[in-house]
Amino acid sequence: MISSKKVSGRDNQQERLRMVGWIVGFTDGEGCFSVSVFKNKTTKNGWQIFPEFVVTQGEKSLEALKMIKKHFKCGEIYINRRYDNHTENLYRYCVRNIHDLKDKIIPFFESNNLRSAKIKDFEIFSRVVNLMINKEHLTSKGFQKILKIADKDNL
Amino acid sequence: MISSKKVSGRDNQQERLRMVGWIVGFTDGEGCFSVSVFKNKTTKNGWQIFPEFVVTQGEKSLEALKMIKKHFKCGEIYINRRYDNHTENLYRYCVRNIHDLKDKIIPFFESNNLRSAKIKDFEIFSRVVNLMINKEHLTSKGFQKILKIADKDNL
Repeated sequence: MISSKKVSGRDNQQERLRMVGWIVGFTDGEGCFSVSVFKNKTTKNGWQIFPEFVVTQGEKSLEALKMIKKHFKCGEIYINRRYDNHTENLYRYCVRNIHDLKDKIIPFFESNNLRSAKIKDFEIFSRVVNLMINKEHLTSKGFQKILKIADKDNL
Repeated sequence: MISSKKVSGRDNQQERLRMVGWIVGFTDGEGCFSVSVFKNKTTKNGWQIFPEFVVTQGEKSLEALKMIKKHFKCGEIYINRRYDNHTENLYRYCVRNIHDLKDKIIPFFESNNLRSAKIKDFEIFSRVVNLMINKEHLTSKGFQKILKIADKDNL
């Protein structure tokens, strides 16, 4: 029994590493670390900074998004219904909660490096989220600083 | 020394599993298993069946394609120069050699399942490559059979 438990534990560990690698690869391919800035009258300075981790897929691959959501234990899957000539709806796995981004998404990609040019987007994204966690976006100086960081061609 | 070798071996194994997972994830996101049919006067029946495994990336992520090529130890990276209004050239990692597809690409994705809807493309692709390895595409019946298999919406 002990031996079979050991094998099973090793199998789980191997599957976990493959899954971690898969999430990084899928994010390199289909993921997006975005920082948007919206006008929002309810905030102090009239603007809202909106960092978001998103992975988009067609309906046929909804299961792939569900696997990612299950792994991160946060975020939501939204549907983008299509009424144009496309044949399938789009689904978006989104993590928007700033604490989920700080505590779950960012540490994951810090431990498991992206291997495409998206690593640069991630670094910018991570800096913005950390500034927001420190509430710097609520001051005029901090807000300008974030705009400057986020205003790159690759975000 | 033995101990450090053990740790190093385990680290390599972990990195290998992460890399395997990453290639599967990146392929789920950006890869393509395609079967094209061309007119080609030099072949017996005037047609050529052309299975190809392709991963495409912009210039900024050329390194990601080099990693995949290094892993599979086959295939080539081609450049699609862009003269339109896009700002970067596209690169395509392609495996076209039928024996490389049979001996390297297909066994890899058989051992490490795709997790998106591309698994269906892969299954069709794999059937076509196996038929071609058995030279069935050189008979009229086999050629028609391959056309029927490959003529799916998702390829």
